[in-house]
Amino acid sequence: MPTVIFQPSGRRGLVDEGTNLLDAARQLGVDIESVCGGVKVCGKCKIKIETGFFEKFGIDSRLSNLSAFLPDETDYLNEEEIADNYRLSCCAEVLGDLLVFVPEESRGAKQVVLETGKERVFNLNPAVRKYYIEMQAATLEDHRSDAERIKDALNAKYGLPRELNFDYPILRDLPTIVREAHWKVTVTVWNRQEIILVEPGLVQRSLGLAVDVGTTTVAAYLCDLHTGQVLVVDSMMNPQVRYGEDVLSRITYAMMNDDGLEKMHAAIIDGINTLARRMTEKLDLTPELILEVTLVFNTVMQHIALGIEPSHIGRSPFTAGTKEAQNIKARDLGIKVWKAANVHTLPVEAGFVGPDNVGVLIAEEPYKEPEKMRMVIDIGTNGEIDIGNAKRLLCTSCATGPALEGAQIKFGMRAAPGAIEKVRVDPETLEASYKIIGRDEWYPELKKADVKGICGSGIIDVVAELFKSGIIQKSGRFNMKLDSPRVRKGEDGRPEYVLAWADETSIGKDIAFTQGDVRAVQLAKSALYVGSRYLMEKLGAQNLDSVTLAGAFGSYIDKESAMLIGMFPDCDLDNVLAVGNAAGDGDKLALLDVGKREEAARIAREVEFVETAIEPDFQERFAAAMAFPHSTDKFPHIEHILAKVGKK
Amino acid sequence: MPTVIFQPSGRRGLVDEGTNLLDAARQLGVDIESVCGGVKVCGKCKIKIETGFFEKFGIDSRLSNLSAFLPDETDYLNEEEIADNYRLSCCAEVLGDLLVFVPEESRGAKQVVLETGKERVFNLNPAVRKYYIEMQAATLEDHRSDAERIKDALNAKYGLPRELNFDYPILRDLPTIVREAHWKVTVTVWNRQEIILVEPGLVQRSLGLAVDVGTTTVAAYLCDLHTGQVLVVDSMMNPQVRYGEDVLSRITYAMMNDDGLEKMHAAIIDGINTLARRMTEKLDLTPELILEVTLVFNTVMQHIALGIEPSHIGRSPFTAGTKEAQNIKARDLGIKVWKAANVHTLPVEAGFVGPDNVGVLIAEEPYKEPEKMRMVIDIGTNGEIDIGNAKRLLCTSCATGPALEGAQIKFGMRAAPGAIEKVRVDPETLEASYKIIGRDEWYPELKKADVKGICGSGIIDVVAELFKSGIIQKSGRFNMKLDSPRVRKGEDGRPEYVLAWADETSIGKDIAFTQGDVRAVQLAKSALYVGSRYLMEKLGAQNLDSVTLAGAFGSYIDKESAMLIGMFPDCDLDNVLAVGNAAGDGDKLALLDVGKREEAARIAREVEFVETAIEPDFQERFAAAMAFPHSTDKFPHIEHILAKVGKK
Repeated sequence: MPTVIFQPSGRRGLVDEGTNLLDAARQLGVDIESVCGGVKVCGKCKIKIETGFFEKFGIDSRLSNLSAFLPDETDYLNEEEIADNYRLSCCAEVLGDLLVFVPEESRGAKQVVLETGKERVFNLNPAVRKYYIEMQAATLEDHRSDAERIKDALNAKYGLPRELNFDYPILRDLPTIVREAHWKVTVTVWNRQEIILVEPGLVQRSLGLAVDVGTTTVAAYLCDLHTGQVLVVDSMMNPQVRYGEDVLSRITYAMMNDDGLEKMHAAIIDGINTLARRMTEKLDLTPELILEVTLVFNTVMQHIALGIEPSHIGRSPFTAGTKEAQNIKARDLGIKVWKAANVHTLPVEAGFVGPDNVGVLIAEEPYKEPEKMRMVIDIGTNGEIDIGNAKRLLCTSCATGPALEGAQIKFGMRAAPGAIEKVRVDPETLEASYKIIGRDEWYPELKKADVKGICGSGIIDVVAELFKSGIIQKSGRFNMKLDSPRVRKGEDGRPEYVLAWADETSIGKDIAFTQGDVRAVQLAKSALYVGSRYLMEKLGAQNLDSVTLAGAFGSYIDKESAMLIGMFPDCDLDNVLAVGNAAGDGDKLALLDVGKREEAARIAREVEFVETAIEPDFQERFAAAMAFPHSTDKFPHIEHILAKVGKK
Repeated sequence: MPTVIFQPSGRRGLVDEGTNLLDAARQLGVDIESVCGGVKVCGKCKIKIETGFFEKFGIDSRLSNLSAFLPDETDYLNEEEIADNYRLSCCAEVLGDLLVFVPEESRGAKQVVLETGKERVFNLNPAVRKYYIEMQAATLEDHRSDAERIKDALNAKYGLPRELNFDYPILRDLPTIVREAHWKVTVTVWNRQEIILVEPGLVQRSLGLAVDVGTTTVAAYLCDLHTGQVLVVDSMMNPQVRYGEDVLSRITYAMMNDDGLEKMHAAIIDGINTLARRMTEKLDLTPELILEVTLVFNTVMQHIALGIEPSHIGRSPFTAGTKEAQNIKARDLGIKVWKAANVHTLPVEAGFVGPDNVGVLIAEEPYKEPEKMRMVIDIGTNGEIDIGNAKRLLCTSCATGPALEGAQIKFGMRAAPGAIEKVRVDPETLEASYKIIGRDEWYPELKKADVKGICGSGIIDVVAELFKSGIIQKSGRFNMKLDSPRVRKGEDGRPEYVLAWADETSIGKDIAFTQGDVRAVQLAKSALYVGSRYLMEKLGAQNLDSVTLAGAFGSYIDKESAMLIGMFPDCDLDNVLAVGNAAGDGDKLALLDVGKREEAARIAREVEFVETAIEPDFQERFAAAMAFPHSTDKFPHIEHILAKVGKK
């Protein structure tokens, strides 16, 4: 029997002469991509034959040890590849010892880079996979049903378990489809357990939708499950906002109105359906092509989105109805994608720390950091904080409110064209310069600014700049003794700072940042700060080695501004990283790599939840942390920044 | 450690002193019924303490070896039981060696008698089971979700697997229900894998619905899953009849009309919903209390009822879309019972031999007959025949048409009040006497007969009597030379026999049995006869040791008449048994005993299907078997009957 070695894995073994290389790879546990399963119609299983004598292996892998080139192969290999000894592994039969190289693009479990926010490398291994099979037509002698015939073929060709179950709606057209397709079909299998689609011929396209249902913003990612690429990104205001700005007010709405839960449930399902329609339309496709949906949300949004009674999460002891990951038929939820599609929701950790934080964790993987003290903070209407490493990981939840997302701020808005996203205030003149989304130049260089409002990253910037320039004091109060037209009393008689004059805006009035706005940011940053200090104390951590800022607007945040206003404890700025919507990234990863779901289940069990709001000195510490940059803790890195601007 | 022996199983072992007898039984693998799981509120776990010294066991099981009688027990034990040393096993603790008798009614896997048609003994072990649990309320220290808390309790108390899944709709009200019930709930689990209902407090009632979807008649049985009793029996004409009388005409309807399948699918689902509503109404209940539905049907009815494209079953090679047993959510099928209920369908054998014949097999169990040659024949619009025993079992299907169910017979009708069900013809006078359903006397003793028509058993009787009295000849043709006003030419000029004169009827005209009716019966009986002969030949069987006649009207059939007209090969009449609707019985058994589903899966795989209609001499033999009693085969038992009436 000839010996075959596959590189780069180095797996080797004896195979029968005449075995094709695709089967040889399977026998030796090497995963070569093959959409058609070896019937020479997909061209995905390219491998390269390494020529020459490899003394250390004792193998002479000359091309004569392979069967002759088949005409089929020329359809899939270009001249260059042919010259470079590429073959289709389903066509080339082993006649003697061989050394074979499996190039990256032909490997079954490919590593792919997720290209939104931070670049993340993952294994492309979605729950939804397609398998091409060709079957013999039914005969009088062969009484197997259409369904059995498909399962037998999947088992014989791909080793799928015989216990596969057809989702009921798929059975209905099955007899017609297999015959019209002349028994050549592509079968879509979910999680190696359920057949959710049978299509005529060879089909590779597979769409999946990852949705991050935030309290304020819903972000959605339409992904190609076959390539791992994100095809369309879209978002909308959570349509439940009309029933309440934050999670507690929505719980209240559900409790005070008999149809409250049902209304909010219907609103978010309708929102997801709108996104699915809008996003597939951009590709001239329909939502019926979406074969799986993954959802992340905080625990209250999870309950409402699934229509589960949420009132008990809102009061002590904050018990969730369910914490486990769910797989729910999209049709049972009313989500209008493929009729047999499943909706996967990531698990809850505890209390308000929901599937969205699990998403952050599986994206950021602090549990893989062996030693250093990592902090991952997810900024939303509810803030979640994780601190620790592989040894121990704690999490907590803070009621930050929607201020950092632009809500409850007088001129706050979502990150959209026309929003101020960066701000600088000259400490001498107290004049403002700013950058708006959609334009490259900064005001005042920018003519005809058309400012509409200020978004999250701009809000953090302006507070930091007002503090650095002395316009607001350590307490957060405006210093009204300053002589600048921008520092003034607003219509309500309370102090404010004018960021943009009416003629720079598209709304026809001055856009100002008010004393009330500063307070809202103080409440948010104090909640985050106190929460993270409690976790550090429980872990016995003196310092943080790194801080990761996540959140819908997280990749645009100015990390120096964020640290300066005290959103998180002191840390070397070089080790502070803003990564964007890590919860959404985790959601996408769960869609694209089923291994991430197992990781999610494990970390959801292992991370320790700390209920910080019930600590006896919480109120006292919360009040102290309202100050800028923050309370009495030591902060060498912040002092260094302040020294640069002459504040120390 | 004390020794405890449980009778009648004889299981014995050592248990810790102080263990209650319910736990002791579990430890020793003895299944004692306990709805409440041992919290002393159901009274189901009665056992009897055997007193005296049992030398052969070396055990002195005096009552002093038990803890004292608890006040709780008097609520559930009457004086007689107390005097007879009955205890509740959850209350009585082991203090020394004991001999315990578990009475039949306290055994977990009870044998129950199914009381419709033939009495059948089975193990009451439904897929749907209820479990009562009491839980600790959630606390700040215990972050388990409501769902986890329930699963943990079911695991701790009943050993149910931790992998139990909540059917999605059940999660929605869960937080409200567990709290309103103060954490004392009854959980309904399907198949040890899915939670389909959570109810406050201790609930025992569990309803299930078994439906036998015949081509012509739909029979339904509302069962108590807790006691195994049939509570209500009901039936209706299959509402699909308007689209075609038999399976082939319905397939044609589906093929010729774009919405044909959908219409017929909707019609039967609507019919099942009507039956479910009507039957629960009789008990002042609602269909939402039905927790599982089991269905049997022939393969074509299965496809149409499930909405699966049926055209390919109707033409060679007669391939089913799916043959396996299905578990489909009632809500996906549109069946309006409990929202999380499952619908279980028995598996198909092959071709037209569908789940209904599997129902017949698991009811009649010919595969448990070690030696003798059994024949089981299910008479419906399609006839199914099984012949064989534990060694080998063959089956086939015959197109009998609906004649034996009263359809396509001039005055044919369903078995209902007013239908002639038994007939005798005096061979001398050629006068008729008959019995109608709903009346005890026979005509002519019966005054004011109010005959409406003739049903299946009457049809078989009248053909046999016409033959015995010489009114019809061996060929089936009327002997028009006879001198009787009853033997005449009808309006169409063709011969007929008047069974009832107009004044005996409620329809105001003579009820006659026509030459065409005789022909329809001949076609049906010939199909059955030829089918069974083929199977006997394949098995090398010369004779049948027993014949079981099943079918909707099967228990009323006159077996002598049936054999005389040649519906089945010759057999000793003592070994011919009419058992009624065995398919419906099998359906009920599958509802009440999950073990029967495994048996069904096995037998559906093992029984060998024979396609008789494609045999080269089929037409020839079919024509020959049209004669009475049947073709040239030997038939000593039939000759004996004929000799008695002077025909030999």
